[in-house]
Amino acid sequence: MNSLQFTAESSSNGMVERDFTVGGVPGVLWSPVAGADRAPLVLMGHGGGNHKKHPAMSGRAQRLVEACGFHVAVIDAPGHGDRPRTEHDEQEIAALFAARAAGEPEGPIVVRYNAHLADLAVPEYRATLDALQALPEIGADGPVGYWGINMGTAIGVPLVAVEPRITAAVFGQHWPHVLAEKAKQITIPIEFDLQWDDEHISREEGLTLFDAFASKEKSLHVNSGKHKELPRFEADSAVRFFARHLGGAVTASA
Amino acid sequence: MNSLQFTAESSSNGMVERDFTVGGVPGVLWSPVAGADRAPLVLMGHGGGNHKKHPAMSGRAQRLVEACGFHVAVIDAPGHGDRPRTEHDEQEIAALFAARAAGEPEGPIVVRYNAHLADLAVPEYRATLDALQALPEIGADGPVGYWGINMGTAIGVPLVAVEPRITAAVFGQHWPHVLAEKAKQITIPIEFDLQWDDEHISREEGLTLFDAFASKEKSLHVNSGKHKELPRFEADSAVRFFARHLGGAVTASA
Repeated sequence: MNSLQFTAESSSNGMVERDFTVGGVPGVLWSPVAGADRAPLVLMGHGGGNHKKHPAMSGRAQRLVEACGFHVAVIDAPGHGDRPRTEHDEQEIAALFAARAAGEPEGPIVVRYNAHLADLAVPEYRATLDALQALPEIGADGPVGYWGINMGTAIGVPLVAVEPRITAAVFGQHWPHVLAEKAKQITIPIEFDLQWDDEHISREEGLTLFDAFASKEKSLHVNSGKHKELPRFEADSAVRFFARHLGGAVTASA
Repeated sequence: MNSLQFTAESSSNGMVERDFTVGGVPGVLWSPVAGADRAPLVLMGHGGGNHKKHPAMSGRAQRLVEACGFHVAVIDAPGHGDRPRTEHDEQEIAALFAARAAGEPEGPIVVRYNAHLADLAVPEYRATLDALQALPEIGADGPVGYWGINMGTAIGVPLVAVEPRITAAVFGQHWPHVLAEKAKQITIPIEFDLQWDDEHISREEGLTLFDAFASKEKSLHVNSGKHKELPRFEADSAVRFFARHLGGAVTASA
């Protein structure tokens, strides 16, 4: 097993931020300052073109740490953040920008590229989880959740499909083409976000992916607005979802 | 204007419950015990076959009063609760039970009967709102919301379509046939609940009604489960929706 090495530590707003690597993959672990006791862990996946410490990640972590006392970890996806891009990454990104410039659909390229990244990232997430569970403040038998939208869903759905330690997940905003087959293997409670006026993902595509999950308990949150207009209150809703399923009280701030 | 007469008062769990009548229509007003100050009002509509003090109503009121310090009022729908049934009510109820016993669709009867009740109830709600706003602890210019699922939506959609004092609403679980035209006139923020495995209302029917609202800000919450299995956490979500839109802090209990 690859062990976890901490490479940096800082703290602010009641939250400790520790950079780490596992098998060369860089990640970040956010924890409560006063957190000697074991607490549940939420793994997160960042969006395409972003990285582990994007404000969407640190903002969600702040909510989970502050409101629930959970640990939160994100790793950079292949070709993202502090990780080098391969020639294949560069080609796919160029293809995406070309499609965007030409006003052509981005979906086919994003679906294909994200599926490739997920093939690489799923074992990295599993190795990271192994290493995180070796930490005394997390432990091998505590509850684990997963939260990822957009590319975080493209990686998270295949991850959750094969990873029995993850028992609740928040997904959203991706196409069903590759993921629906994986989603059929998922039976844990999920919350799923979909934008009703998404310029990239049609309503039918979004509903098809939601429909594919075999989970007995699943919730779909649709909001009016375009792809990037997911309302901030959905982050609060996700925090409450994890509080319900992983245990822990939500304080008023959430 | 019909004035409001209080007919009974009790209190428990930090909530004062006052029965009232306005123009002969019986209602209930729930308020914070320590509530001399003005606070927002949420009008609620009960479900078909139920009444103003059904546990679904008092439970939602408890959340709104405790978590937000709001006032909450419900009136009995025509033919429901403490109100007499007309011959027409008896005929429609008999038709509904006959359809149910025969395994025939309930939708056409519920849609027709609820539209009739809404024609009667909308002016009653407006008169009740007039009278409630004359109370010093509510006032004529405070924020007003509306919350009603099932028959509460059948009455609430036409009410909100014509009542500019209501500025945020939670609806759900009804057919689009009569209501979609009214929903097109509604532009206030809404949250809408839909059950994904509803044995009475198809997904297409539910989505069609959600789609019809002209609101710029609208959220759809879909949950797996049958018609009567709307999860309790949707009540908590509605409370937070009203806290966001009518003003007020949600405390941890919500």
